Amino acid sequence: MLKLSAMEGGGYYNQNSAMQAAGIELLLPIWKRVAQTVAIDQAPLMIVDYGSSQGRNSMRPMRVAIGELRARAGSSVPVEVVHIDLPSNDFAALFTALDGPDSYMTGAVDIYTSAIGRSYFERVIPPGRVHLGWNSWTMQWLSANAPDAPDHVLAILSTAPQVQKALAAQQALDWRRFLEVRSSELRHGAKLLSAFPGIMGGETGWEWLGGELWAAILDLCRDGMLSEAEALRITLPAGPRTLDAVYAPFASGGQYADLEIEHAEILKVPDPYWSGYKQTGDRRAFAECHANMVRAWAGPTIASMLAANRNPSAAVDALFVHLAERVAASPRQHEPFLAVTVLKKR
Amino acid sequence: MLKLSAMEGGGYYNQNSAMQAAGIELLLPIWKRVAQTVAIDQAPLMIVDYGSSQGRNSMRPMRVAIGELRARAGSSVPVEVVHIDLPSNDFAALFTALDGPDSYMTGAVDIYTSAIGRSYFERVIPPGRVHLGWNSWTMQWLSANAPDAPDHVLAILSTAPQVQKALAAQQALDWRRFLEVRSSELRHGAKLLSAFPGIMGGETGWEWLGGELWAAILDLCRDGMLSEAEALRITLPAGPRTLDAVYAPFASGGQYADLEIEHAEILKVPDPYWSGYKQTGDRRAFAECHANMVRAWAGPTIASMLAANRNPSAAVDALFVHLAERVAASPRQHEPFLAVTVLKKR
Repeated sequence: MLKLSAMEGGGYYNQNSAMQAAGIELLLPIWKRVAQTVAIDQAPLMIVDYGSSQGRNSMRPMRVAIGELRARAGSSVPVEVVHIDLPSNDFAALFTALDGPDSYMTGAVDIYTSAIGRSYFERVIPPGRVHLGWNSWTMQWLSANAPDAPDHVLAILSTAPQVQKALAAQQALDWRRFLEVRSSELRHGAKLLSAFPGIMGGETGWEWLGGELWAAILDLCRDGMLSEAEALRITLPAGPRTLDAVYAPFASGGQYADLEIEHAEILKVPDPYWSGYKQTGDRRAFAECHANMVRAWAGPTIASMLAANRNPSAAVDALFVHLAERVAASPRQHEPFLAVTVLKKR
Repeated sequence: MLKLSAMEGGGYYNQNSAMQAAGIELLLPIWKRVAQTVAIDQAPLMIVDYGSSQGRNSMRPMRVAIGELRARAGSSVPVEVVHIDLPSNDFAALFTALDGPDSYMTGAVDIYTSAIGRSYFERVIPPGRVHLGWNSWTMQWLSANAPDAPDHVLAILSTAPQVQKALAAQQALDWRRFLEVRSSELRHGAKLLSAFPGIMGGETGWEWLGGELWAAILDLCRDGMLSEAEALRITLPAGPRTLDAVYAPFASGGQYADLEIEHAEILKVPDPYWSGYKQTGDRRAFAECHANMVRAWAGPTIASMLAANRNPSAAVDALFVHLAERVAASPRQHEPFLAVTVLKKR
């Protein structure tokens, strides 16, 4: 089991995840309808956040879901909210955020929150307990390493056919496994929203920013700050999915593991920093926002892939200085695609 | 709400809590009987660890409880284990320990573990859900600061009557509050074991080691490394209880908040390092074990009480070097008293 996909700790991911927040903004109307239509039987109602990271981007969806469920089941119905992430996640930042002003706990009563530090590729909740599941921006991470791409940091943008094949195979396994274990945790009539990087018309939306990240890695190789072996090894164990890949397990009869797809589409996430840049013209600020955003989700994984004798924080610092310089030299809008799926348990 | 009582992070508390482990060893036969006699009705069964710190000392009691419950309810009955501590707790260390070889999860199936980063002076679990509660070595921590003791680091060993009075008043409030909120979380027939530093015959067992810690603080004052104002402020917001204090809320009719005391006694915890010292004669190793043990539970709180312009880690380092020197100069057995109470919900 791969355990590399940790976000930057110390609350850094919370501070540098505006792209993810922009994607979640697009998901909220869909999520609201899910909460309005899910079966609600016995209290307490349980909402599970599969892949919470440090919690900041979970506050609004949890608040929306609590509000919709209580509008239907009564304003005083107890609600359990469970946040799940890998053991290496910065749970102190999560609990601090839950105690803070933006928390869905603030001003609410009878909300019972907890966290689970285990991989969601296992069964982590007792059978048949979950009413509503939320999963955003995590299923791009593979449960095992894909082969190293020789020509890119993002396997999906490699031109090597064996890399594409291995990535697709692992993603297919992971999607099925995720659906199977979630199905055991969901109640009858429960719903799960899962959103992750998507592909539309052959494009991921990461071609520009991912390309600059790879170019920055090559910059460090040229400057002698990374070896070729390290550049080869630095392939993020992550990838986006097409709608075809989302539907694949459901091909025969429209069901898989007692789940059916109620809704699926590909959305384009707006660049959260673009309008600010157009107003101020401040290329450096724009570039630093994007470099920090990439660092927040990719930095620790890249650090873990460096040679044993390398000072990882110095190398990662240098990498993101180079990325920021490249972005500042030629700013563009970063508009990644996001696949969203709503699943219903029979 | 006081939030100072964090244990040393980075897994340090896990590595330096052999005294607490020795106390838990004494509690296990009592805990086993509790698990054998508690009412078990509907599955999943829920065991709650109130004040987990980094989890190491929770592994055996949780394993014992799971074993006893499953011996009665069936080996495949799902069991939920919930670990509660303050948001500032090192939950990454907890989840890492839960994933490690000593975990009660290892080799077991259908155990569902989670963590809650909130104060247990609030209701943290939905009403009537808990079958078994475990609470060890935490209720010495006050929910609010007691007045600064001018003549000691441990308020209970101060000779100032107003310090004793304020400490006792806060401890009484905290005990009642703890019982009230736990009562709402426990099922009918549920049981809760609570163990915390005790007083027997006017003695705490901390007279020697606590006295050396205070003397080490005065050493730093003499050397100009701490100010008198800091020495005054360094009073740990913690204290032990007599059996009379444990029984006080139950004085009229034997019940409080639908709880009754099923068992209460004061135990003497053996010094976990003494036999090793008697074998090796290594005073320095003995002293360092004790200094590290005190640092693990008291270090972060002391650091938080230093002047704003003080380098806290340097000052705390120096303090525990002095403590180790004092212990090495004249080793004794440290045998603190531990009060244990078993409560039953009507």
